Amino acid sequence: MEVLENITYDELQVGDSAACSRTLTEEELILFAAVSGDVNPIHLDAGFAAGTIFGERIAHGMWSGALISAALATVIPGPGTIYLEQSMKFKAPVKLQDVLSVRLTVAEKRPKNRVVFDCTVTNQSGDTVVEGQSVVIAPTEKLTLDRPTLPKITIGGADQD
Amino acid sequence: MEVLENITYDELQVGDSAACSRTLTEEELILFAAVSGDVNPIHLDAGFAAGTIFGERIAHGMWSGALISAALATVIPGPGTIYLEQSMKFKAPVKLQDVLSVRLTVAEKRPKNRVVFDCTVTNQSGDTVVEGQSVVIAPTEKLTLDRPTLPKITIGGADQD
Repeated sequence: MEVLENITYDELQVGDSAACSRTLTEEELILFAAVSGDVNPIHLDAGFAAGTIFGERIAHGMWSGALISAALATVIPGPGTIYLEQSMKFKAPVKLQDVLSVRLTVAEKRPKNRVVFDCTVTNQSGDTVVEGQSVVIAPTEKLTLDRPTLPKITIGGADQD
Repeated sequence: MEVLENITYDELQVGDSAACSRTLTEEELILFAAVSGDVNPIHLDAGFAAGTIFGERIAHGMWSGALISAALATVIPGPGTIYLEQSMKFKAPVKLQDVLSVRLTVAEKRPKNRVVFDCTVTNQSGDTVVEGQSVVIAPTEKLTLDRPTLPKITIGGADQD
């Protein structure tokens, strides 16, 4: 089984960095619409999106935020992290099949286990789509956890009422 | 069919405000874990969560962010809004069956159709769980759209590989 291992406050050094990546599929558009309630047709309706300045469906901006939060929670610092603050600037749209890379870099260590991360989300062309900063309480104890397995999620079939 | 109607830049006035609410269910925990990749057991494993300072499973912090973004995209200003910036402070954990209210209030109108919103997310006890600010480009043209219907999403059955 895969494990999640954290990086403690003492282990983190300014300049340390980690990255992970994820591709935008139609499944993400639908799941994010469901879990947020943002059913704007710019994310869901190819015909509608074709008539907008974007020309095609785009990701919910906050999906990139969700990827940043996932990287904090599972990669650096990982399990035991407590999320205090996040800022984001949305710089460019994310389109279907774009491969996003989230990079988190330790910008500052503060007292009381606080750590500031610079966050950059780029696409496969190297364009920055989101940049921002996170402030967290980093874990003080080393944790290694089994990575939970999610139940199967099926999209499709009859329309919801 | 339900419609989504926007509020244009010209219509928005400083102090205008709108709210919407949503309950945290297990379904949200699983869908947000799937769509973000944040499978931290604090959100998914009741037994693990019982041994943490939270004592039970909590929402992904960015789920509250997703609710803010959904309110911007579907309520105020609504369709046609372009998301530029978001800041958030996570003030308190969100637990299963908590009913969150997202309130967005116009804080400032800037040139070039930019609007700043104060964002507050509170739970059913009136505790603030998230506060922050959004900056958007508000729509300039009135839009009324049919609210898209999502395909059915089913959680459960066999585990994913």
